[in-house]
Amino acid sequence: MRTSPRIDLQRLLGRLDAFNRIGALPGGGNCRLALSEEDRAGRDLLVRWMREIGLRVSVDAIGNIIGTRAGREELAPVMFGSHVDTVGTGGRYDGLYGVLAGLEACEALNHADQTTRRPLALVAFTNEEGSRFPPYAMGSLVYVGGLALEEAYAVRGIDGATVGEELRRIGYAGNACPGFLTPHAYLELHIEQGPILENEHFVIGAVEGITGLSWTEVSITGRSAHAGTTPMDLRRDAACATGEIAVFVRRLAQGMGGQQKGTVGRIELYPNLVNVVAERAVLTVDLRNTDASLLQQADQQLADFLERLAQQEHVAIATRRLARFEPVSFPAEMVSLVETTARELALPCRRLFSGAGHDAQMMARLCPATMIFVPSVGGLSHNVHEYTAPEHLEAGASVLLNAVLRLADEVE
Amino acid sequence: MRTSPRIDLQRLLGRLDAFNRIGALPGGGNCRLALSEEDRAGRDLLVRWMREIGLRVSVDAIGNIIGTRAGREELAPVMFGSHVDTVGTGGRYDGLYGVLAGLEACEALNHADQTTRRPLALVAFTNEEGSRFPPYAMGSLVYVGGLALEEAYAVRGIDGATVGEELRRIGYAGNACPGFLTPHAYLELHIEQGPILENEHFVIGAVEGITGLSWTEVSITGRSAHAGTTPMDLRRDAACATGEIAVFVRRLAQGMGGQQKGTVGRIELYPNLVNVVAERAVLTVDLRNTDASLLQQADQQLADFLERLAQQEHVAIATRRLARFEPVSFPAEMVSLVETTARELALPCRRLFSGAGHDAQMMARLCPATMIFVPSVGGLSHNVHEYTAPEHLEAGASVLLNAVLRLADEVE
Repeated sequence: MRTSPRIDLQRLLGRLDAFNRIGALPGGGNCRLALSEEDRAGRDLLVRWMREIGLRVSVDAIGNIIGTRAGREELAPVMFGSHVDTVGTGGRYDGLYGVLAGLEACEALNHADQTTRRPLALVAFTNEEGSRFPPYAMGSLVYVGGLALEEAYAVRGIDGATVGEELRRIGYAGNACPGFLTPHAYLELHIEQGPILENEHFVIGAVEGITGLSWTEVSITGRSAHAGTTPMDLRRDAACATGEIAVFVRRLAQGMGGQQKGTVGRIELYPNLVNVVAERAVLTVDLRNTDASLLQQADQQLADFLERLAQQEHVAIATRRLARFEPVSFPAEMVSLVETTARELALPCRRLFSGAGHDAQMMARLCPATMIFVPSVGGLSHNVHEYTAPEHLEAGASVLLNAVLRLADEVE
Repeated sequence: MRTSPRIDLQRLLGRLDAFNRIGALPGGGNCRLALSEEDRAGRDLLVRWMREIGLRVSVDAIGNIIGTRAGREELAPVMFGSHVDTVGTGGRYDGLYGVLAGLEACEALNHADQTTRRPLALVAFTNEEGSRFPPYAMGSLVYVGGLALEEAYAVRGIDGATVGEELRRIGYAGNACPGFLTPHAYLELHIEQGPILENEHFVIGAVEGITGLSWTEVSITGRSAHAGTTPMDLRRDAACATGEIAVFVRRLAQGMGGQQKGTVGRIELYPNLVNVVAERAVLTVDLRNTDASLLQQADQQLADFLERLAQQEHVAIATRRLARFEPVSFPAEMVSLVETTARELALPCRRLFSGAGHDAQMMARLCPATMIFVPSVGGLSHNVHEYTAPEHLEAGASVLLNAVLRLADEVE
């Protein structure tokens, strides 16, 4: 007798626990940096699980892992998934939840003995985090043709190894050509990584789009000098200039308001000694906005400020663009699909924008895409204390399963 | 025939060149961190040279090297010297000049066949810079009883080794007891490390005292969060708090004016990533003033500011005192001695305070002390481009020689 497919929460939690033993950090959280030994072990486990539930596994040349479940017709597949790599001090759900919930959806269909008109394709994209190798979402970016494979291979990580070397070393430079499947649609289930759903007591977020992002590395060259002997007005102090930038970036974001964010997350001083006026500083500025023209304005205001600052501080300031992605808006019918599915499951749902980048942002160039968010306690993300309640994990997986089923029945 | 002793500039320059081959950096400047292989090589050369000109060499338990030249009477010796270690990117003269000029003064006396009533003692103190092992002026501080030998031995350096281990490894944990000679007086010749003499066209500085110094390590704990998803007003950003401190410290020093200096020289962020709001920051604040009560006021203003900042930024701020030395005033008769000697040599001289710490600051606890400064081009210091013109090197050495001769003839 055919039953309606249902998410088995215990099976999903069991897989999350088992997978998170890989790269577990002593105090909690996980470190599975892209293409590391831990990433390899995670990939091996995922491939095994995919095969155990009958998915046909392909690995493409950038290491994206795609498990296909046949449909009744030879149509473009419905793709869903996320990533299994983490930042250096990552949490238990970022990326992994979307992949394992997709695996659970496939297994739920198996148990219900249910086929779909379209094939299904569960994907784990390579190096979404970008913590070891820039840029983030590398696997999906290569998949959609936004970055040439050879360029990606040549990227050198923070430890000196290249993407190409490491892919070969861990055995995940596959034969499939990135982009070999053009999906009918792409869905990505993910924790919110922010506080909105929790604060407003929603269980599901229907993601309207992804914030645009501008990353700038700022290098300041002043003059090293003795902290005890150099008069204040003769200094060319790279640390003071750094301080002014950190204060300005926050004021800029607060002044613009709305969705504007601004962060100085990295600061390196040279020679970085208590009694030496800093000669050089390298810092990063992360600006984000959901509105393309506002993001451009923020970029311009930063550039203007740095120009004034260089004169005022008698330092040289050089900038280098580390990343720039325009905001992405997901198609209205995809966002509605998530809302409708949540409503049918009686799950409180609101629309929101993602402030974080995701593989869905790249996949949107190739096919209709959107994301499903579930709450993150305290909005914590990229933090070992990241937490989402089991009932929310179950709710998100159910929305994913049911939205996939609707998409898989679509003819066009 | 006895001639008047005279500094031989070429001999002094030759020794500076030869010594500075040790730990020479590719682009100029020197790295002879305390108790490193390079420091050992420098010490070995100094001991050889001391012996070649007939000094009796003693090494004390903290590694201070003292070369004694006998006097006509068994009186307290006149001590002079400085240090031969450098910061990581040090110049050619800081410390070394004072030692080699002292060596040259002794050799000039030999060549003039001149004895002195009092013995002379040329000293090279251990670890004046404090770059590898805190605190600075460790050798002289132990010598005057300001730091217990066992405490100094236990100090762990930035590379994990301890002072005791490294002293034994390089063979400079000597037998003499620190403080075994109580000098009649102490004189230290040094480059100014600041711009005053050059800017005002003086050749000699008679040092009235040494600026007091307060070093504070500030640790800020906020909360790591995603740079794209965390609303600006919910952040507890350790990097923003750091920026506010860097800006405040400068404003504090400029607002107080006079001799007040303020420097944030070291900043470390964690996790220090472009897209993560910094959870933690550790930075240093270096405050200096020649006036003890003003320095105390500056300390208090910093403490008050940090308290307000912690509330305003919703971060925890802890402080740790890294060093605190009260301003030192040298005895008027010692300062006058330098002035008089310079005047007799027709060298333009002015009084000034030292903004940098020196071994003379510690020795002043034990005996009358002062310093002789010569100009530093551009005021550069702790910088590979540190430079003092040969005629100024000669002038300083001549003042040292003649001031030493005056002191060595004093009965009481």
